[in-house]
Amino acid sequence: MKTLKVPEATVIRLSVYSRYLNQLQKNGIKSVSSGEIAEGINGSSAQVRKDLAYFGDFGTRGVGYDVSDLNRHIIKILGLEKEWKTVIIGAGNLGAALTQYKGFQERGFNTVAVFDNDINKVGLKLGGIPIYPITQAEQFVIKEEVKIGIVAVPARYAQEVVDILVKAGVAAILNFASKAITVPKHIEVRNVDLSVNLEILTFNMSLK
Amino acid sequence: MKTLKVPEATVIRLSVYSRYLNQLQKNGIKSVSSGEIAEGINGSSAQVRKDLAYFGDFGTRGVGYDVSDLNRHIIKILGLEKEWKTVIIGAGNLGAALTQYKGFQERGFNTVAVFDNDINKVGLKLGGIPIYPITQAEQFVIKEEVKIGIVAVPARYAQEVVDILVKAGVAAILNFASKAITVPKHIEVRNVDLSVNLEILTFNMSLK
Repeated sequence: MKTLKVPEATVIRLSVYSRYLNQLQKNGIKSVSSGEIAEGINGSSAQVRKDLAYFGDFGTRGVGYDVSDLNRHIIKILGLEKEWKTVIIGAGNLGAALTQYKGFQERGFNTVAVFDNDINKVGLKLGGIPIYPITQAEQFVIKEEVKIGIVAVPARYAQEVVDILVKAGVAAILNFASKAITVPKHIEVRNVDLSVNLEILTFNMSLK
Repeated sequence: MKTLKVPEATVIRLSVYSRYLNQLQKNGIKSVSSGEIAEGINGSSAQVRKDLAYFGDFGTRGVGYDVSDLNRHIIKILGLEKEWKTVIIGAGNLGAALTQYKGFQERGFNTVAVFDNDINKVGLKLGGIPIYPITQAEQFVIKEEVKIGIVAVPARYAQEVVDILVKAGVAAILNFASKAITVPKHIEVRNVDLSVNLEILTFNMSLK
């Protein structure tokens, strides 16, 4: 069912639906309609149905969705049915915050190590996660078969760090450095610019 | 021209186009085609044209867009033609990282103060920006006419902090706390969950 090109906005909403379904599960709620999901996440029920339709036919007309079934499906679609090991490169402010960011763990992303080129940081821990020298990153990623690398270094180091991760065999890179990076075609990359979130706010404010 | 409902994905891409146009301006490039923009940001030229068409007719057929004109238009559309003062609530790991995040300043977001309830942090500075006690947040926001509040506190404090910001008159809140917050209808809110970015990667990896 994954052969259709799925818009990124749909993938993002699936992630939001899944969080909402988690919450329903915690509250012991067994079934839910597309309208209730929509209300819970400030969306529209037509959008919910359209997003889910990319992946098959989950609900029962007039009955709605089984909460835990639907969530299990979405988690599988998002590739989250297993835990992912991640490493973070850069133990500066952002790297330290990401290392201790609880949201990653909650969604099955397990940060196993942080790497930095500052020898004063090496040997310390961030929320229990050790900081290793950047020179050990390649061997660590190979040995632990880490597939996701998170880059939180200053822009001028970003490509160098990315090259190390690629050489070590990661399949995906989440890049927080404000610099375009180059990777082979088979590597998934996502560049995060946190200011986009503020720009969506100011866009909406300027409509008023 | 802003009466059509613009998809959020379009707003996000406008922000990406603008960054790319900045880069072209720095490199002294005067005109650009939709195809060149698309190539620069790994998008499609049809998408670039469609996104821009929401806001008017900027280019000249066969000639393309004037880089600085187009960027000025986009910056205006995004509400970034003026500088925005922001405050950050929470001087923990994430708050500290956000306070010193250069990407905000580059896009015209000026963090003027950080607030925390830890008296050991009060009086310190983060990248030159002072940390004040949370008890002073309301008066500060009123006096400085800050319109955007960034919430980077633990989930259990999120609503309390949001209420302070709303009472003080902010128009928009960027919420990094992993908790649904409630605000009056006239307030713009954006909840940021950083793990969505990893989930887009694992979704794409699972397609392979």
